[in-house]
Amino acid sequence: MDEGGGQPSAIDPHTPVGQVGERSLLQHLRSRIPQGTGVLVGIGDDAACVETTARTLITTDCLVEGVHFRREWTEPALLGRKALTVNLSDIAAMAGLPRYATVSLCLPADLPLSFVDGFYDGLLERAAETGVDVVGGNLSAAESRMVVEVALLGRTERPLLRSGARAGDLVVVTGTLGAAAAALHFLDRGVRWRGNGALEGADSYHQDARSCLVRCLRAQLDPAPPLAFGEALAEHDLVHAAADVSDGLSGDLLNLCQESNLSAWVDSSAIPVDSSAAALEKEGGENGFSLALHGGEDYELLMAVPPENLEALQKVALVWEVPLTAIGEFAAGPPTVAVRFGDTSRRLKPQSHDHFVDPLRERRSDPTRGS
Amino acid sequence: MDEGGGQPSAIDPHTPVGQVGERSLLQHLRSRIPQGTGVLVGIGDDAACVETTARTLITTDCLVEGVHFRREWTEPALLGRKALTVNLSDIAAMAGLPRYATVSLCLPADLPLSFVDGFYDGLLERAAETGVDVVGGNLSAAESRMVVEVALLGRTERPLLRSGARAGDLVVVTGTLGAAAAALHFLDRGVRWRGNGALEGADSYHQDARSCLVRCLRAQLDPAPPLAFGEALAEHDLVHAAADVSDGLSGDLLNLCQESNLSAWVDSSAIPVDSSAAALEKEGGENGFSLALHGGEDYELLMAVPPENLEALQKVALVWEVPLTAIGEFAAGPPTVAVRFGDTSRRLKPQSHDHFVDPLRERRSDPTRGS
Repeated sequence: MDEGGGQPSAIDPHTPVGQVGERSLLQHLRSRIPQGTGVLVGIGDDAACVETTARTLITTDCLVEGVHFRREWTEPALLGRKALTVNLSDIAAMAGLPRYATVSLCLPADLPLSFVDGFYDGLLERAAETGVDVVGGNLSAAESRMVVEVALLGRTERPLLRSGARAGDLVVVTGTLGAAAAALHFLDRGVRWRGNGALEGADSYHQDARSCLVRCLRAQLDPAPPLAFGEALAEHDLVHAAADVSDGLSGDLLNLCQESNLSAWVDSSAIPVDSSAAALEKEGGENGFSLALHGGEDYELLMAVPPENLEALQKVALVWEVPLTAIGEFAAGPPTVAVRFGDTSRRLKPQSHDHFVDPLRERRSDPTRGS
Repeated sequence: MDEGGGQPSAIDPHTPVGQVGERSLLQHLRSRIPQGTGVLVGIGDDAACVETTARTLITTDCLVEGVHFRREWTEPALLGRKALTVNLSDIAAMAGLPRYATVSLCLPADLPLSFVDGFYDGLLERAAETGVDVVGGNLSAAESRMVVEVALLGRTERPLLRSGARAGDLVVVTGTLGAAAAALHFLDRGVRWRGNGALEGADSYHQDARSCLVRCLRAQLDPAPPLAFGEALAEHDLVHAAADVSDGLSGDLLNLCQESNLSAWVDSSAIPVDSSAAALEKEGGENGFSLALHGGEDYELLMAVPPENLEALQKVALVWEVPLTAIGEFAAGPPTVAVRFGDTSRRLKPQSHDHFVDPLRERRSDPTRGS
């Protein structure tokens, strides 16, 4: 055990960060962060300096307390993992390889050091899993609510855009949809999932429901986008366009349509509604369909795939154990999305998550409210 | 005048951003941001894709309302300029060329669209002045306080580090120190400076004081780091180490010492106290010295310069109209900074700005409080 008196690592974990101070906290965190191989200058200088190739991807995403998360809903390590993951998902959707991250934290002065350490435990674990080097960042006070901002650089030879879809391409999605959104309802009611797998506050649920809860809570608190599959798309010329499903299928598909100047339809019966989300919604008379359409935070990949490439793409997906589902088609026409229910078709009004309008709301509404 | 009904640019500027909504605001901002030359994929995709060289600098810095700024103290355009400038200063301190920025805004729902537009007016103006392309970003709700986070990429052949100082190097600083910190006192008392140069709330000050106020308020609200000079340092092998003076000379010099494992002394009479800051402090019986040592936000360059290079460096500085002052020397020994007053010398305890401890405080205290 490191007991080196005066060493940053010897600070009592209960100390509020306001007492630790900006400089000591920086030094403390710096001592925890390994320097990666492509990192010429890491944390501690005015800027980091990293090795890059001819084309570099950049994305940035933030998690705001009270808007994107609640501190009592998540363990700090899971928050750290998610702060990186939401950016990893963006790089995967560009068919890129994630490389370097900066981490900016705005912290309320009364936040205990242990929370920041837990956050970094998770973030550095996720970084190690994905080959990302943490190269810099910033610490600041926040008045009362924590804000986490991660910027992530990635490498790419041939970025996969939102604007490349063509009429006739299939609408294809990875994984299942709705699980992350289903979890919000239960988090709001006091159910908790720990990073070690333990479920709390769920004693009143029967065993099947508890399994479903774990699956949905994990999807919300520790999402697992198909990163390796996304990166592999750069090697194969099989996909015309891609986006990650972060705001909800309805909004993200409409956005793909807008960027590609196409319309699209999806078959309601083909949408891969997460079975756990569906099971949990059953008691409320719902079936998870609305969550799958509008819930958001799925961090799956939405793609435009020429029909003749689907089989080959399925083989790539198999390698990475990523389920693929063709749910519809892109077509010529103004950017709109229609949902087909058997013989009828209704235009889909996007109800994707808008953080300005309704932070951390539950999203249950008529999935086909016409416009 | 653009009156295109339904166009994002036609939104009433008084509309609160919460009513505009995340997507419309994104579209609105996107329509304002020009796509730069090295930008392969700009705003609107999962990530931006930019052309890079073998070595890329990355820095990120944030401005938190109530901690780094008050909305009533600054015009939105000045805030936009400063949000980029604080990052430009970091790239200059690495002898780099700034290239690409992402801008992440956490906005309270009641913030009027006009504030965001004003912010972007300033930020895009500053970006155009400095050859920076805004390539992406993020919008999110904030509970009540605005948070601005800018990440900036830069190009460099040979980054200038904090760790390169050698014993015998001169401590050299650009410009003057203390002006930005002096302004806080007057902002707190209702004095305002507009981007067009107008001074408000300063009727009770005589003409000389008003000139000093303008100079200090400009330094605080629209800082002008020596960017071209910083970048030029990469071409000349004249400087061993550099850092920007953002936290205050006392802290930033101590940090250079720590990174280079050296001590340093500075001559109190050589420190370039800003004459306006000194004049404004005169009535309170102070002379600006403490502000120059500890105030922070000067965004000047602090350098370790071999004595034999000073003359050549002065010539480079002359080209860019940057004043240089040699204020002391690095020496072997544990990382400490001493201030010499004539024949006596006292160890300097850094009192640089720590945002956790005392946001937006005034910093007036004994500059040589021993330790």
